[in-house]
Parts: sequence; structure tokens; C-alpha cells
Amino acid sequence: MNREVIQTLLEKIQTLDLDSMNSISARWDSLTKPPESLGTLERLVSQLGGIQRTSHPQIGKRTVLCFAADHGVVAEGVSPSKQIVTAEMVRNFLNGGAAISVLASCTNTALKVIDAGMVHHIEHPLIIQRSIACGTANMRVERAMTEEQVYQAIELGYLTAVEEIDNSCELLITGEMGVGNTTSASAIYAALTGMNAESVTGNGAGLPEHLVKHKARVIQDALFLHKPNSDDPIDVLSAVGGFELAAMCGVMLAGAVYGCPVLVDGFISGASAVLAMKLNPLIKEYLIFSHHSGESGFAEIRQQFGFVPLVDLNMRLGEGTGAVMILPLIDNALSCYYKMATFEEAGVTEVEL
Amino acid sequence: MNREVIQTLLEKIQTLDLDSMNSISARWDSLTKPPESLGTLERLVSQLGGIQRTSHPQIGKRTVLCFAADHGVVAEGVSPSKQIVTAEMVRNFLNGGAAISVLASCTNTALKVIDAGMVHHIEHPLIIQRSIACGTANMRVERAMTEEQVYQAIELGYLTAVEEIDNSCELLITGEMGVGNTTSASAIYAALTGMNAESVTGNGAGLPEHLVKHKARVIQDALFLHKPNSDDPIDVLSAVGGFELAAMCGVMLAGAVYGCPVLVDGFISGASAVLAMKLNPLIKEYLIFSHHSGESGFAEIRQQFGFVPLVDLNMRLGEGTGAVMILPLIDNALSCYYKMATFEEAGVTEVEL
Repeated sequence: MNREVIQTLLEKIQTLDLDSMNSISARWDSLTKPPESLGTLERLVSQLGGIQRTSHPQIGKRTVLCFAADHGVVAEGVSPSKQIVTAEMVRNFLNGGAAISVLASCTNTALKVIDAGMVHHIEHPLIIQRSIACGTANMRVERAMTEEQVYQAIELGYLTAVEEIDNSCELLITGEMGVGNTTSASAIYAALTGMNAESVTGNGAGLPEHLVKHKARVIQDALFLHKPNSDDPIDVLSAVGGFELAAMCGVMLAGAVYGCPVLVDGFISGASAVLAMKLNPLIKEYLIFSHHSGESGFAEIRQQFGFVPLVDLNMRLGEGTGAVMILPLIDNALSCYYKMATFEEAGVTEVEL
Repeated sequence: MNREVIQTLLEKIQTLDLDSMNSISARWDSLTKPPESLGTLERLVSQLGGIQRTSHPQIGKRTVLCFAADHGVVAEGVSPSKQIVTAEMVRNFLNGGAAISVLASCTNTALKVIDAGMVHHIEHPLIIQRSIACGTANMRVERAMTEEQVYQAIELGYLTAVEEIDNSCELLITGEMGVGNTTSASAIYAALTGMNAESVTGNGAGLPEHLVKHKARVIQDALFLHKPNSDDPIDVLSAVGGFELAAMCGVMLAGAVYGCPVLVDGFISGASAVLAMKLNPLIKEYLIFSHHSGESGFAEIRQQFGFVPLVDLNMRLGEGTGAVMILPLIDNALSCYYKMATFEEAGVTEVEL
């Protein structure tokens, strides 16, 4: 993949199908309930129909794609976890013990775990080995990735997503694992918004308060060193990104190109989302923001980029867990859409205004 | 039931079991995730354990109790729906076509529909006939219920709930159907808070804006006429309540007495909740507030009474739908609690601070 290929793909993205969305709204209004009383969930089903270009949207087959990668910046002491934890947690994902494993299993969601660039590789029959490098470089000292690596990682996400779509996947979900990746995500937000690093930097996996300030300084240093162009997501990823962040960007690109909705997790996935939206604002229409992350600064970020997550459970676990957690809400909304009786079918007198 | 019996029951209510709650917190902290990163859902599982007095809370067997009743105040033109709609919708509940029917079925929740006092009775093998009267009186002209009827309705809810608990129900959910019952709920909120009627009155099932003002005036008139004592929930219910509202109060009382959590729906159920909390503030600890209702004034109400619903989906459908909709979030949280691996089990290095 390169700039030209991405450009060609971006040009394929269509606006959502209004006819399908209008049909869906009309059916909602015919069902035995006050108009619009299922609130956000009615609009969500319309959005799914607009993306899938049908008045019969489905998300029965869905996959959470978890990209795992390491970050050179952990050398600066920005994470409370040792780097080995990325690999240990990936093994836990695959053995069924992590939150994402449990939630995927409860919600009938396929879980795929891709090594996009871990430092410590693991042997496991279920891991998908696609390592680009053994972790990124330390952003405080040099660019996290070469431009070539950024394209490789975007391509990895894109091709993994396309393979799922080819296998009839109807909903893609972004997930990740990578010690240090809240640092990368915060740096991306700061780079894109011009907000100062401190206001978008939180305690990640449990960093003590005095080290959060240090983490923000590391980010500020990296941004000062590389001066990434806020209009160029590739440049931002190269300067302060990560393999998993670029890969999730590629997933969102594939979703928009192929008309497959992408359910976005919280703080880390959100950074990929705002990068993808920068590639082409139309991509936003293909994204469903699942939950309001408990990580510091998320409130201002969502306001700046104008997205409204479905729920706020004060979660900040990552992995894709916030997205998979709320999947049953979307399933329930679709069940109402398909299974509720109309006023006519049920013999219920409609409101006369 | 009477004042003395209620008083005796209220005295049986215990504070939540702190030992169980502490055990649950300790297990959460041992699981492979950053501390407290499942946010609100971790505390919710603790609350369930505190209520059920065990570190192994369960909500596998759950029932939504939908009490249906009519309101004399609809004679004042406060609802866009005709009174026959209460009965028509109840038939729809029982035939599987209503939102509550679909959602209960999707979430493995038993649905019981109780005629607590409809004007138009229906014949259906599944309806539970416990009608107290053919609708309440018109609160603008006279008290909605006699004190005797209030006790009958609380007893109805209480006994229905106790029967469920005796049949091993582990979670009770409050639901209702009653044309005109947002008027009654708004009147209860206004009576208890002293807020003026207009600020807690919304468009219910779709009342046009100019009639919402009329609805608020009707409420104001009723409150002026009866001057209910804001410290006495029985007096408030008698003046401006409804059979279903009193019955849901009885359900909450039973939940608190028997240590069974009660999942509270939105605007209407919330009015029963604040009445129950007035009976004894300890009851609040047994309630789980499911969603932020889209009905006007709810934001200020929840602040006044200090409850924090799990989600805000801008729903305002009633029936118990907001509660049943979000039930899978609680199921998912419990699955994480029981099925996730500990750091030790998974061989994941714990954070060192």
C-alpha cells in the first residue's frame, strides 16, 4: 500500500444509502411504540441499513480484530506494565481468560488476534503472525515508524478486514493490545487537535499520578521533535503512532470501502478513528462509537471530533471490550426492529394528533 | 396491607452485606485487567453481591413484572392515546408483539403482565387478573385513589414479587402500561420535590407541545387541590398516583425485604422508586437504575434523588423496556467476573507501582 493506493480506495467510499435509511425510519414509525421512543437505537439501526445499503441490516456474523504490538516509548517509563505483558496478555486472549475473550464468547463474536509487531512473540495455534517489526522505535528519540511501516500496518488491517468481509462478516470490531499504546493514542490526539499533551493524557493501565505528568512530557517532547503535520494521518502515525493503531485505521478504511459497519472501542480505537476520519470524513459514517472511555481527556476529544458514543460505563480496559460489551444493545435493537408488531398487525389504535 | 404492616416490613430491611462486597472487589482486582477498568460494571456486581449477601451473585432467573392500569386524568386530554390503548397494548404484550415482549424473549427474561386496574379488561390465557378498580379517579377533580386502594396496590406488587422470589427469581424488573401514567409520574415528582409541574412534565407518548403545557397545568391543579404531604408516599399516591405506580413500589419493598435486586426502568418506574426511597432510604441500595429516560425533567430528578442510571440511550418507551434492554450488560459483567483468569492463573505479570 502507498499514498496513491489509499487515495484510490478513499475515492470508492460512498455516502450512506438514504433510501434504506428512510425505509427503516418508516418501519420504526409503524411499530407499536411512541414515535422515536427507542431513541439512539432507532437511529443506529438506520445507520446500519445505510452502511449495508439495505432495509434489512444484519450483524449476526461479527468479528473483533485484536491487533497486538509493542511501543518503543515504554523505555521512557510511561507504562506501569512491563513490555512482556503484551505477549502474556495475548496468550491470555487466546486461552480464553481475558475480558475480550469472555465477552466475545458471550456475544457470539469471533475473536481474531494478530501479532502486528510485538517484541516478545508467542507460539500459539490461534495467533495470526503478521509482525511488521519487534515494536516501534521510541518516539521521544526517533520516529516511531518509517512511512513504509505505516503503510504496511494499514495494509495489514485493511487486508485482514477484507478477508473477514469476504467470509460474510457483517460487523467489524476494533481491538488492540500493546503496553504503552495509550501514550501513542494520546500523542495522536494531541497532534491532530493541537491540544496540549497534558489534557489528553491519562493513567492508562494504572500509572501513578506523578508519572502521568511525566508521560505527558514525553509526548510533548516527541511532538516537538517530529512536528507531525496534523493534516496528514500518515505523518502523524509515523511520528508517534503504533502498528496496531495504523492497522485499526486500515480496518476502518476497509469497512467504509466495502460497506461494512465498524464498531469502535474507546480511547485507543478512537485515535485510529480520528486518523481515519482525517483520511476521509466520510469514513465517520461507517463507524459506530461504542462507549465513552474513562481515560482522561476523552470528553473533550469526542466533542472536538463530533462523535457520540452509545454509552458511558466508565470503562477503560481496552482490547475492544467496550465495543463487544455493548453489542447486545445493537442486537436487541435489531430484534425490536424485526420482531415487533405494527399498529395494524397488533390492532392497536394509533395516536391521532 | 396498612401503615403498620408496611412499617414492620420496612424495619426488616438490612444494609447491604459489606463482606460479600469486599470479596467481590478483591476478586475484581485479581483479574487480568487494569484495576477498576470495567468501571461502573464492577461496582454493579459488588452491589448485586451486597444485596444477595453472597460473593457469587446470580441473575439467571429474572422476571419483568408489568402492571397495567388506567388513569382517570386522561379525561383532561393529557395523553395523545385513547384509553382503549392500555388494553390493546396489554394484548400486544401477551401476544409477543410489543417491545417488552421482544426484549424479554431476547434476554431470557420471564414476562408477567398483571391487570392492576384497567378500564377495558381483556381475556387472555396469560393475563394475571388482579384489578383493584376500573382505573383511578380524575386527580384534577378528586383523589386518584382511596388510601385503602393505595395499600391494595402496594400489596399487589409486594405479593407478586414475593411469589417470584419464592420461585427462585434472582432479579426483579419493574414495568408498566397505562395511558396517562406519565401525568401521574410527573405529579409524583412535583409533589415530592416541590419543583413546579412544568419542569417535570414531558410529552409522554407523543403529546404535541401546546398540550404539554396543558398537561402541566392539570398536574398543578391536582397538587393545589389535594396538597399531598411530600413526606408521606401513601398520601402522594392517593392524591395523584396510579395502581401500577403503587404496585411497583410494592415490588421494590419486597426486593429490599427479601434481598432481591430490583432493576428500575425509566421515568414511570423512577417515580415508584423515589416513593419507595421515601418509605425507607435503605431501599435505594436494592435498586439498580437502568437508563436515563428521554422524558423532560429526568436529568434534574435524578440529581435531586441522587441516582445514576447505567446508560443513556434517549429511550422513552416505558413498559420496562429500558431495563430489559440493558440486562445483557449486567450478564456480561457477571461473565467477566466469573470467567476471566486471574493474573496468577494466566501467568500475566502484575503491575508494580
